[in-house]
Amino acid sequence: MRLIRLALGQFNPTVGDIGGNTDKMLEFISQAREEQADIIAFPELAITGYPPEDLLFKKQFLLDSKKHLQRIVKESGNTTVVVGAPEFIEGEPFHLGATNYPDQLNGRIYNSAVVASNGQIVNIYRKIFLPNYGVFDEQRYFSRGTECPIFSINEVNIGVNICEDIWYEKGPTSVQRANGAELIVNINASPFHLGRGAERYSMLSQRARSNKIFVSYINAVGGQDELVFDGQSIILDPEGKIIARSPQFQESLLLADINADQAKPFHEIHNQSFANPKHYFIASGNRKETKKLKPSVAEELEPYEEAFQALVLGTRDYVKKSGFNKAVIGLSGGLDSALTTVIAVEALGSSNVTAFFMPSQYTSDQSLNDSKKLSANLGIRMVTLPIEPIFNTYIESLASEFQGTEIGTTEENLQARIRGNLLMAASNKFNWIVLTTGNKSEMATGYATLYGDMAGGFAVIKDVSKTLVKNISIHLNEASNDEMIPYSIINRAPTAELRPDQKDEDSLPPYDELDLIISAYVEEDKSIEDMASQGMAKDSIDLTVNLVDKSEYKRRQSPPGVKITKRNFGRDRRLPIANRYKQVPPW
Amino acid sequence: MRLIRLALGQFNPTVGDIGGNTDKMLEFISQAREEQADIIAFPELAITGYPPEDLLFKKQFLLDSKKHLQRIVKESGNTTVVVGAPEFIEGEPFHLGATNYPDQLNGRIYNSAVVASNGQIVNIYRKIFLPNYGVFDEQRYFSRGTECPIFSINEVNIGVNICEDIWYEKGPTSVQRANGAELIVNINASPFHLGRGAERYSMLSQRARSNKIFVSYINAVGGQDELVFDGQSIILDPEGKIIARSPQFQESLLLADINADQAKPFHEIHNQSFANPKHYFIASGNRKETKKLKPSVAEELEPYEEAFQALVLGTRDYVKKSGFNKAVIGLSGGLDSALTTVIAVEALGSSNVTAFFMPSQYTSDQSLNDSKKLSANLGIRMVTLPIEPIFNTYIESLASEFQGTEIGTTEENLQARIRGNLLMAASNKFNWIVLTTGNKSEMATGYATLYGDMAGGFAVIKDVSKTLVKNISIHLNEASNDEMIPYSIINRAPTAELRPDQKDEDSLPPYDELDLIISAYVEEDKSIEDMASQGMAKDSIDLTVNLVDKSEYKRRQSPPGVKITKRNFGRDRRLPIANRYKQVPPW
Repeated sequence: MRLIRLALGQFNPTVGDIGGNTDKMLEFISQAREEQADIIAFPELAITGYPPEDLLFKKQFLLDSKKHLQRIVKESGNTTVVVGAPEFIEGEPFHLGATNYPDQLNGRIYNSAVVASNGQIVNIYRKIFLPNYGVFDEQRYFSRGTECPIFSINEVNIGVNICEDIWYEKGPTSVQRANGAELIVNINASPFHLGRGAERYSMLSQRARSNKIFVSYINAVGGQDELVFDGQSIILDPEGKIIARSPQFQESLLLADINADQAKPFHEIHNQSFANPKHYFIASGNRKETKKLKPSVAEELEPYEEAFQALVLGTRDYVKKSGFNKAVIGLSGGLDSALTTVIAVEALGSSNVTAFFMPSQYTSDQSLNDSKKLSANLGIRMVTLPIEPIFNTYIESLASEFQGTEIGTTEENLQARIRGNLLMAASNKFNWIVLTTGNKSEMATGYATLYGDMAGGFAVIKDVSKTLVKNISIHLNEASNDEMIPYSIINRAPTAELRPDQKDEDSLPPYDELDLIISAYVEEDKSIEDMASQGMAKDSIDLTVNLVDKSEYKRRQSPPGVKITKRNFGRDRRLPIANRYKQVPPW
Repeated sequence: MRLIRLALGQFNPTVGDIGGNTDKMLEFISQAREEQADIIAFPELAITGYPPEDLLFKKQFLLDSKKHLQRIVKESGNTTVVVGAPEFIEGEPFHLGATNYPDQLNGRIYNSAVVASNGQIVNIYRKIFLPNYGVFDEQRYFSRGTECPIFSINEVNIGVNICEDIWYEKGPTSVQRANGAELIVNINASPFHLGRGAERYSMLSQRARSNKIFVSYINAVGGQDELVFDGQSIILDPEGKIIARSPQFQESLLLADINADQAKPFHEIHNQSFANPKHYFIASGNRKETKKLKPSVAEELEPYEEAFQALVLGTRDYVKKSGFNKAVIGLSGGLDSALTTVIAVEALGSSNVTAFFMPSQYTSDQSLNDSKKLSANLGIRMVTLPIEPIFNTYIESLASEFQGTEIGTTEENLQARIRGNLLMAASNKFNWIVLTTGNKSEMATGYATLYGDMAGGFAVIKDVSKTLVKNISIHLNEASNDEMIPYSIINRAPTAELRPDQKDEDSLPPYDELDLIISAYVEEDKSIEDMASQGMAKDSIDLTVNLVDKSEYKRRQSPPGVKITKRNFGRDRRLPIANRYKQVPPW
C-alpha cells in the first residue's frame, strides 16, 4: 500500500504582511509535522497574501518575499512544503516593447508554487492559466509557466498546479496525469460568491473521476478589501467523493491519508503507457508509526448562513487588517442599518460598536423605538444626535443663493450629508471606522447620497440585494430562536425618511421586481429584450436600466464592501463614467 | 511615380455614442473625398470610443457597433476607409474553462481595424499586441489577432496595424514590410502624458528608418474619464522625417501625398526577395486631377502649455460628456483653487463657472481679497458663504459626545466637509458639477479631507504636483502678458487655513523636496535606498512613504481627474487598501 499523509494549511494571510504570513505558516508546518504529515500545502501566493496587486512592481517587495520564503524552505524537513509565492527572475524583460514600468523591475514575475523538502527547493511550478477576467488581473503581473512537472513522496506521484489551472479539462492536471500523477495538489486563492462551493466541487469531482486520481484543493481564508476567501479546502478520491473538507470562513489544518493504489494506473484509462514521466525528485516522507487518522468533513452551511458568515469575515478582516478595532454605524430604524449592525457586532464584538441615531423632523417614533430595541438586543451603545439644528443653519446660509427654488433632492441629500459628517467626526475623533449601510439595490440605482449615507470606510452590505437583506435577517432571527432584529423593522415598508411620508417604492419599482432586473442587467449583462421576455415589466426595466447607467459616478466614489455575488460593484464590473451608451428599447 | 493621398481623421469620439461617433466619421470621410484622398484612417475603436471597458460584455453594444460600422462601409466609395471597431465572432468561446461572463456573450472579441472600399469590407486587421499594463486592460476583453495582411491602392502597398503593435521592432510592421508594405497605417487611442509625444516620435522615426518605409500614426483626441488623448497624428517619410503633423488637443483632418517610390524595395535592405506577399485587395484610388497639396506640420507646444491644454480638454470633455454645462468651485485664496478655476473657465467659459468663497474664522483677509481679484480677472461670479454658523452648530451637537477631547484634525476636517456640503448642495440644486482642487502632492500624502475638499465630480489637477501647479500658473501669467492669477497667490506660502497660522510645511516636507520623493516613489516605484542615494533626505523619505502608503483608502474614494504624468492615481496604480507592506528602512 503506497500511503501518503496530506495536510492542507487553510490560513488567513494579510496582504503585504510577508513576515507575519510566514510565521503563521511555520506554525502550521510544525503542527503538521506532529501529525506525521508527509506533505503540507498552502494557498496561492500565501507568502504575500492575495491579490498583492501593484505591490508586485516594487522590487523590494519581491526580494522581501524571497527572503521570507527561505525561512519556510529551511523548515521543510521531512514534511514537504508546497507554498504559493511570487517568483522574480531578474534580467528577462517583463514586457517586450513599450511599457511604463519602473526601470529597476527588470525581470519576469511568475505566480509560483514552490516545493521544498529537507531544507531545499526541489521544484517550482509556475501557473500557466492566468485569469484576467472578473476580479482578476493576473496578466498585468505574471508571465505564464510552461511546464507540468510531477514528483514523488513515498513512491506516490504528485502534481502541483495553481487555481485556474485545474479548471481546464485538458490543462496541467491531465498532463500531470499523463506523466504519472496519482494525486493533484491544487493551491488556490479563490474568492467567494454564493454558490461558488458547488461550482468548485462539481469541477473537482469531474477532474478526479475522469482522471481516476486523488484531487486536493487548498484555498485561502479571510477578507481582503472587497474579496472574501472562504476556505472550504477539500480532498477527493478517484471516484470524486469527498474524503475531507475544511470548514468555511475559518483557519484549519485538514489532514487525510491517501492510498495511491486506489488511483488507476494511467494506461488503464487511457489505453496507453506513461507519456514520458518527469519525476523531479523522490523523497521519503514523515511516517514513523501509523497513528490512525480520521479525516474531518466539515458540514456545508445553508445559503443565508453562508452569506452572513461571508459578510462577517469580510467586515472583520477589512476593519482589523486596516488597523481599526472599533466601528460606528448610523442607525436609521430601517432594516439595512439593522443588519449591518448585527454583522458588525458579530465581527467586532458589541463593546466595539457604537450606533449613532440621528433623527430629523421626518424621523418617526417607530424608527427611534426600533433602534433602541435593536441596540438593547445587541448590547451596544446608541447615541442620539438630532440633525435639525445643523440642517437649519445650512438652510439659512444658503437662503439667498437658493432663493426662489423649490425644496427637493438638495435638501434631502443635505440631511444625509450632515449624518455622514457626524459619523466621520466621530471616526476622526475616536479612530472608529464608519461602516455604511447601503444595499446592492441602492448601489445599483443610485438611491443613496454621495458623501452622505455613502460616507465611510467599508460598505458592509453593498453586494446584498434588498431581498437578500430581508431573507438573511429572517434567517438570523429564526436561527437564534429570538427576535434579535425586531420584526417591526423587518416588516416595515422601506423608507429613507428624508421627506414626509416618503417610501422607497415611490421612486423605485417594488424590490422583488427591482432585484430581479438588477441581477439580470448588472450580474448577467442581459439585454432589455431578454429581460422583457423573462416577464419583467417594461416600465420597470426602463426605469432600472436608466438609474443603473447614470449612477456610475456615485459607485466609483463608494467605499469597498464584501463581494458575495457572481458580479459585484467593484473590480468585477468596470464601466466608464462618461458613457453615452443606451440600448434603444425595442418597444 | 506611385502616389497615394493619405488622410488621417483625428476626431473626438465619445465612449458609447456609437451613432454620434459614426456621424462624425461620415463628415470626415466626405471632407477627405473632396480633398481627393485615396484613403482615410480613423483611430483605434473609433466607433465605440476608447476605452469602452465592460460595455464590451454587452452583446447589444457589440451588435449596435456592427450596425453603425455598416454605415461607414457603405460610404467608403473610392476613398478607402480604415476604422477601428470591436469585432465580435459569435460561437467561439471567449475564455476556455472557468469564467463568470454572461452566457449570451458566447463569442470572441477582437480589437480590429476594418478596411472598407467601394461599399465592401475588404480586409480586417486584428490587433496582435494587447496592452495589459498601466491604464490598459485589453487582455480582459480581446482575443489576439494572428495575421499581418497588406493591401494595395494605386499600386502602393499598405499595411494596417493597431497602436501597441507598432512598438515592437520585430512585430507586425516588420512582417508587413517583409510582405511588401511601403506605407504603414497605425491606428491609435494613445493616452497623453507629459513627454509622450517625444517617445512616440522617436519610436516611429526608428520604425520608418530601419524599414525604409512611410509610417503614419493616427491618434484620437479628447478626454475620457481620467484619460486624455492628445491627437498629434503624424506622417513620416522613409528617413524618419516629419511630412505632416496634426495639432494637439483638437480635431483635424491631416492630409499628405505619399510617393511610394521613395520607400526602398524590401530586397534592397534585407538582401532577400519578398517573403510571400499577401495582397488582400487591389483598389484604385480617388484621384481625378492633381490638386496640389501642402501638408501642414503643426507646431509643438511648450511643456507647461501642453500640460495646461491637456487639463483644459480633459476637464471640458469630462464635464460635457457627463451631461453638465456648468461648474462650481470652492475658491480658498490658494493657488490650487486658482489654477483649477482658470482651467475651468478656459474649458467651459466664464459664464459657466461659479466660485464659492467659504471663509471660516481662520480665513485671512488676503484670501478674500485675492479670491475677489482672481474672480474679477476671470469674469466669474463669486459667492461668499461663511461657514462659521454651521460649524458652531456641529460643535454644539457633538459637545456632549466629544466632552474632554482636544480640538484637532476632527474640527479641521469638519470645516472642509461643511464646504463640501455647500458645494454639493449647489450642485444638486442647479445641476452644476463640483470641480475639486486638490493637487497630486496632496493626493499622494492624504493632505486632503475625504467628503470635504475631495468632494466633487472631477478632480482637475489631481495628477499635477504642487511644483507643477506653480510653474503652470507662472507660465499662464507670462504667456498672457498679464497678472491673470495674482502673484500674491502664487508667491504665498501654502496653507489650508483650518487652524491659526497653519502652513502646509508644518505637516509636510517642503514641496520641492516632497514632489521629488513622490515622483520617485509613486511614479517609479523606487526603493527607499534608491531615493536616499539620489540625495533625498531620509526623514522626508520616511514621512512621505508613510503618508502615501496610509492614504490609499482616501484616494480610492476620490473623483477621477486628468492623467498627465507617466503614472497617475487611478487606473495606472492599483494597490490594496488593506495592506501591511512596509519596506524596513535600512537606516
